[in-house]
Amino acid sequence: MPATSFDIIGLGNAIVDVIAPSDDDFLIAHGLHKGAMRLIDEATAEKLYAAMGQTTVVSGGSAANTIIGAAQLGCSAGFIGKVKADPLGDIFAHDIRTARVAFDSTPAVDGAASARCLVLVTPDGQRTMNTFLGACQNLTPDDVDAQLVAQARIIYLEGYLWDPPEAKQAFLKASEIARTAGRRVALSLSDAFCVDRYRDEFLGLVRDGKIDILFANESELHSLYQTADFDTALTQLRNENILAVVTRSERGSLVVTREETHAVNAFPVEKVVDTTGAGDLFAAGFLTGLVKDKDLPDCARLGALAAAEIIQHYGARPHQNLKALAAENGFEL
Amino acid sequence: MPATSFDIIGLGNAIVDVIAPSDDDFLIAHGLHKGAMRLIDEATAEKLYAAMGQTTVVSGGSAANTIIGAAQLGCSAGFIGKVKADPLGDIFAHDIRTARVAFDSTPAVDGAASARCLVLVTPDGQRTMNTFLGACQNLTPDDVDAQLVAQARIIYLEGYLWDPPEAKQAFLKASEIARTAGRRVALSLSDAFCVDRYRDEFLGLVRDGKIDILFANESELHSLYQTADFDTALTQLRNENILAVVTRSERGSLVVTREETHAVNAFPVEKVVDTTGAGDLFAAGFLTGLVKDKDLPDCARLGALAAAEIIQHYGARPHQNLKALAAENGFEL
Repeated sequence: MPATSFDIIGLGNAIVDVIAPSDDDFLIAHGLHKGAMRLIDEATAEKLYAAMGQTTVVSGGSAANTIIGAAQLGCSAGFIGKVKADPLGDIFAHDIRTARVAFDSTPAVDGAASARCLVLVTPDGQRTMNTFLGACQNLTPDDVDAQLVAQARIIYLEGYLWDPPEAKQAFLKASEIARTAGRRVALSLSDAFCVDRYRDEFLGLVRDGKIDILFANESELHSLYQTADFDTALTQLRNENILAVVTRSERGSLVVTREETHAVNAFPVEKVVDTTGAGDLFAAGFLTGLVKDKDLPDCARLGALAAAEIIQHYGARPHQNLKALAAENGFEL
Repeated sequence: MPATSFDIIGLGNAIVDVIAPSDDDFLIAHGLHKGAMRLIDEATAEKLYAAMGQTTVVSGGSAANTIIGAAQLGCSAGFIGKVKADPLGDIFAHDIRTARVAFDSTPAVDGAASARCLVLVTPDGQRTMNTFLGACQNLTPDDVDAQLVAQARIIYLEGYLWDPPEAKQAFLKASEIARTAGRRVALSLSDAFCVDRYRDEFLGLVRDGKIDILFANESELHSLYQTADFDTALTQLRNENILAVVTRSERGSLVVTREETHAVNAFPVEKVVDTTGAGDLFAAGFLTGLVKDKDLPDCARLGALAAAEIIQHYGARPHQNLKALAAENGFEL
């Protein structure tokens, strides 16, 4: 196997989050399903933006958040995703590069504006997301640098990539390159409704051996196996031949393989402000643990630690230095 | 006196804050004076932005922050300030209008981009600000709607307005209109270095009876009277014929008139994250108290409460509903 140049490469939608405090009445008035992600067109985005309160603008994107977290924790990392050469695209590019993540995807010059996600945060800390995919729809297999992907120990893919039609092809190309090069492929299921849209495809990826590591939260897992019973879903997951991680919010996480199951506690926090990025940062910590050869429970503890940082403030990019935070909590990375 | 249509109108630089975590080494490497505001040109802004870490973008501007806070606390409010018709200008306009603040200043179509302030937040919660004034330099006396100002109970002006040459003329026009209409004029001294630049002018405003209410923090007060001794400065302040408020961070505030002095405690907070906007929101609470006919100590308590909310997260715009927060703490507004 040739040498690896990167610990982890992410492929995902390049999105800037536009976050506002909200309340349940606003969600109801706008027909929004709390905690979920829905796709919207630009006109709807503008209408919703006009109705939203005071905003905070922070780079986001599920896989991008994970890659930033992994880079902060000491992984060498890169990201593939599509912005347009416009102000939001510039913000996204600045923020990922300043985290020392290699980001060389060519920005689109024409076409739709850079993607944004309008995030409504209710007082319970839950986030409800409305995504205008914009330039993300211009991500194609040509954007996948074969050499870059082949040289990374782990390629991390977000389920959301199945929404823009050509991005799915980019996903499949990256996965194929990584497998051929003997690398590990990780998939995040992203969102229960996203699983609803692509259930058969996601199960196919898992069962055809195209995925080595799967991240899901409880509702995504229920959706994947179409059951309301957690133990039923877990039994099915255990029978897939993969390393799976199920995140359960304040109830911690489960690491599940065919042979073993580890339950790991959530990291205590004083106040949950905004859960945006909790799953993304959990994956960042977990994958960093794998890269640094930690055992599985420690990988999950690192994930819990990174997730705890992110839910204590607006936005899915860390405010504290995660590596320093990990060191304070006994992790040598 | 004719009826008032607004409780408070603010006049200030219309700025969007671009906030990043930083450390003391970064400040030293870039020759920055911790806790201060310096003016930079666009090229310097771009260079500093490229060097800054992960950013959070939130509308700001000192007087604008105060006006938003006052509006949230139940004041009818308006704002006069200059943006360009560009993405940052759109963010500023959205955020102030969604707070139900009247904002009808015509955006510039040509010339410099909308203003931004690059804010570096150190782990001690201190903020160091680098402002590219951009379109703010296009604010002129023509932008001051005489009828609007004459109909407001309080006109609130920021000292920073003396930096863009024509904005100072707008400041003086607004102050004159308000005085002629028998309204109260409030001035925030903004920053110790700003006081250094315009000390004689600010003292002239106070002593010529052009200012009724003055807000200063300790370092601004020291700069105003060119003394390192707090009590000396306070004695001089007491002899001016105005209502003055001195904010002292965690040591609370002093309300000072020729006849009386009230010391009011700071509102306790768990963790200071980012002090950006602490003075602005203090002024918001204090002025709301005045508008609602509270006694002076209660005005200062309302100020302390609003300041406490703002320093617990990034950015100078409230995340919590300030009116609800005030109600929880026994203030009927």
